[in-house]
Amino acid sequence: MTHEKAERKIKNLIYDYAHCIDDDCLEEWPTFFTEKCFYQVISRVDYEAGLPVGVITCTSRGMLVDRIVSLRNANIYEPHVYRHLISAIRVRSEKDGVWNAQTSYTVIRTMDEGDISVFSTGKYIDQIVFEVDKPLFQNRICVFDSRRVDTLMVIPI
Amino acid sequence: MTHEKAERKIKNLIYDYAHCIDDDCLEEWPTFFTEKCFYQVISRVDYEAGLPVGVITCTSRGMLVDRIVSLRNANIYEPHVYRHLISAIRVRSEKDGVWNAQTSYTVIRTMDEGDISVFSTGKYIDQIVFEVDKPLFQNRICVFDSRRVDTLMVIPI
Amino acid sequence: MTHEKAERKIKNLIYDYAHCIDDDCLEEWPTFFTEKCFYQVISRVDYEAGLPVGVITCTSRGMLVDRIVSLRNANIYEPHVYRHLISAIRVRSEKDGVWNAQTSYTVIRTMDEGDISVFSTGKYIDQIVFEVDKPLFQNRICVFDSRRVDTLMVIPI
Repeated sequence: MTHEKAERKIKNLIYDYAHCIDDDCLEEWPTFFTEKCFYQVISRVDYEAGLPVGVITCTSRGMLVDRIVSLRNANIYEPHVYRHLISAIRVRSEKDGVWNAQTSYTVIRTMDEGDISVFSTGKYIDQIVFEVDKPLFQNRICVFDSRRVDTLMVIPI
Repeated sequence: MTHEKAERKIKNLIYDYAHCIDDDCLEEWPTFFTEKCFYQVISRVDYEAGLPVGVITCTSRGMLVDRIVSLRNANIYEPHVYRHLISAIRVRSEKDGVWNAQTSYTVIRTMDEGDISVFSTGKYIDQIVFEVDKPLFQNRICVFDSRRVDTLMVIPI
Repeated sequence: MTHEKAERKIKNLIYDYAHCIDDDCLEEWPTFFTEKCFYQVISRVDYEAGLPVGVITCTSRGMLVDRIVSLRNANIYEPHVYRHLISAIRVRSEKDGVWNAQTSYTVIRTMDEGDISVFSTGKYIDQIVFEVDKPLFQNRICVFDSRRVDTLMVIPI
């Protein structure tokens, strides 16, 4: 696969991921990852300090499925939706079939009552592999800019 | 036309549309649509419920022209400008010459006095046709995330 | 170079510029410009009126370097980070090796204490040249939508 072609597929993966969450198709969210994967939401300060503990850490597709099941069944929270703004996708390099990418994001949250706010900004640090031409996240780290974490983080970033 | 080429033209159409509004070239806004067209601004809740009535509904280029004429002449409102953030354009399929696309947007509004706020977030659901190589919106539905509508919706989304 | 190829490189230049600032690699920021260059931050109202004086004006790479040196050493300000959202890059034309582009931007600012706000929205008006296949800004004008300028403009837009 040429770099251009891989880049195009990776961009669409990142776009589809965002639409999947914003369209509330959360049951499909784990299918964007490889079976054995790493998904983490971590603050910029902790990430840069090399601290391994994120706000959320999942190490398999099964754990991602669990998150959605509990979100649908167990969690009690005020209804809200996300809108992801994806910016400046940079597919930087490939080694042994693993592609590295960095992307900026902002999530705007709209509460059921109508309040709109900038919920989170940051960047995705991704490692992507292709399984039979289909790109999947092997590693997706969401590094958010703030030190402060909103207590209401139910829907994935 | 290849899918790649059509996709590139459609992306530029969506970008130019945003710049047209943000640069206050509103007289050009109707030229992005086919003569007989459908433009609607509707809440997510109403859209998903299949309710046909939007906040704004126009069914021809002439109606779009009328909106701009009244905006320039009749409406009285506090001066403000928009900035569109366009994200994750996904050209999904083509059938009988009609292309389907989905795009996330956020509009930041800056009032003349300086107040900046997130005015609207949502997605565009588009149907696009080519007239002699030039892409045009046959159908553009702006589905906004909030239930609440700002009373000040003069400039098109 | 084909238009498509130039466009791809210019988009990556604009993306890398944004990541450079957001990742706090400010020492690299001047390397995105030609030796003799023009960088200006100016309000929309002043820009449209043809007023030549911006909030910030630099006319050489050396002046850009100076800004970063004083930012690192002399300025005293509350710590904060930026997140650029880049939208709707339009590479419009090329003449005598100079490419013209227009891009919308929004900068979200996160203070050390955690406050998140929309700091600035506007557009970049760029003139780009290639030096041995590498695109550089010869001219970058940041036209912000608001009349009001935040007193805290230390980090470049």
